[in-house]
Amino acid sequence: MSLLVVGSVAFDGIETPFGSVERTIGGSGTFISFSASYFTENVNLVGVVGGDFPQEKIDLLNQHGVSTEGLQIKPDEKSFYWKGKYHMDLNSRDTLVTELNVLADFDPIIPESYQDPKYVILGNLTPKIQQTVIERLKKRPKFILMDTMNFWMETALDDLKVTLQMVDALSINDEEARQLSGEHSLVKAAKKIMAMGPRFLIIKKGEHGALLFHQNQIFFAPALPLEEVFDPTGAGDTFAGGFIGYLAKTDDISFENMKCALIYASAMASFCVSKFGTDALLDLSDDDIQKRVLEFVDLAQFEIAMK
Amino acid sequence: MSLLVVGSVAFDGIETPFGSVERTIGGSGTFISFSASYFTENVNLVGVVGGDFPQEKIDLLNQHGVSTEGLQIKPDEKSFYWKGKYHMDLNSRDTLVTELNVLADFDPIIPESYQDPKYVILGNLTPKIQQTVIERLKKRPKFILMDTMNFWMETALDDLKVTLQMVDALSINDEEARQLSGEHSLVKAAKKIMAMGPRFLIIKKGEHGALLFHQNQIFFAPALPLEEVFDPTGAGDTFAGGFIGYLAKTDDISFENMKCALIYASAMASFCVSKFGTDALLDLSDDDIQKRVLEFVDLAQFEIAMK
Repeated sequence: MSLLVVGSVAFDGIETPFGSVERTIGGSGTFISFSASYFTENVNLVGVVGGDFPQEKIDLLNQHGVSTEGLQIKPDEKSFYWKGKYHMDLNSRDTLVTELNVLADFDPIIPESYQDPKYVILGNLTPKIQQTVIERLKKRPKFILMDTMNFWMETALDDLKVTLQMVDALSINDEEARQLSGEHSLVKAAKKIMAMGPRFLIIKKGEHGALLFHQNQIFFAPALPLEEVFDPTGAGDTFAGGFIGYLAKTDDISFENMKCALIYASAMASFCVSKFGTDALLDLSDDDIQKRVLEFVDLAQFEIAMK
Repeated sequence: MSLLVVGSVAFDGIETPFGSVERTIGGSGTFISFSASYFTENVNLVGVVGGDFPQEKIDLLNQHGVSTEGLQIKPDEKSFYWKGKYHMDLNSRDTLVTELNVLADFDPIIPESYQDPKYVILGNLTPKIQQTVIERLKKRPKFILMDTMNFWMETALDDLKVTLQMVDALSINDEEARQLSGEHSLVKAAKKIMAMGPRFLIIKKGEHGALLFHQNQIFFAPALPLEEVFDPTGAGDTFAGGFIGYLAKTDDISFENMKCALIYASAMASFCVSKFGTDALLDLSDDDIQKRVLEFVDLAQFEIAMK
């Protein structure tokens, strides 16, 4: 069951109240790939890096079963760089630096060996690039999930609307859902957004969990209450990677199975925030993940006695 | 199984973006009593009102099976009055008016017929009054839940700390938990607060649900995502009333049963916010409540397949 991941592969600079790091590997494609790799073996990454990107980090992706045949290397250019600073509550952050570099003219080339993916996840990139990826697939995949962000709602709304009509599912955060729909109520927002194209909508609420909408159904997955949150960077992408990885593994896109996928996604995100960048996603065992999922069972499951 | 409710019985003035009302009945004791009355028949209310409080509202409490023998009426004084204004997102509000009136020198007298309650809920009042209530009970109840708010943390912290040592459970919101503990992480906050006395801690997060802590266990009950939230006034008290009402009905204070209680509590709160004041709590049927609880089952339950 092959999974196509398209997203940025980049350097991140991160400042939190607990420490900072000038250059760690990040990017939506990186977080998604590492996270999904714990569920399915055929993770095919499309992205672009500059000559400054260390080969050992590419090797690390390969060691996790991620194919980097589709990762273009532009030896004379620099990798995408983002730097952000988190505030005390870690819920808000300021972007300090955004250097597009190789991403500025990224042309997502899909290797022949990546063709006919059953599952596709389009990490946060310009809606136009996301659209190009879909157009370059010779066969319509079974399930396409896209992520996006407020920046594209402000600068490329028309493109975004076109892309939304081409996908099965959208993953955004609560503020973005409100911005895209013009509705404060997330229930109303979800209806409007699903009318724009995606049959499934995931609204991420950070430490407050995530909602999955489909037709008139709603499922809520809590976030695990943690003693320490060290660095939230990449948590949303890690979440999305866990979600699509679980779907690809089980090859079941029923709403019931997506509930499980959302719990596994939340489990992966709970690991992500415990260390800087991708550090917490490098050495997990199946047992670690299962134990974490059981914490979600304890956290959220109840036996209701009818009154 | 008798339940003793102590709290304010008052007039509320409410301004929301959707409308306003100058004087509707409210107060923690009122919301708690109405909510608990759907679960248990012996709800005994202790509170105080002025001569301006309408007899028909007292009759309404009685019709819901709430005993008002302990509701003192001071004919020459005025009832407690609070007026607040909600902002567009309904998550924040400004207090416009607080007139203590009869509450200023409230002496909580417990009628003989109310003695020996198995369950007690102390709505938001001065910690000293809450303490007096406990001291006036001839026998230690099986379970005492108290609510409080940031105001008492700022003005009566020493009293509050004494009262905390006398109760089994505390219900506060997330900001109050952070203020009381000095910890941002709710997991750390919960540990510190439980070390102050209460064995159980409920942290209410409004539209983001509620957490129940006990020893090393955590349970999370989501809030129901709603298309419309009309007026959040009293939602926290309604929640607490549903919680203690369910415990009194089932007479089971195991952590597992408290999970159910929290879901019923959330269901009651979801009704509360749909109309002004107590309006939505007056004519519910058992069937309404059961249907609502089943929505929580759909929202939060999943069948995990181990990886």
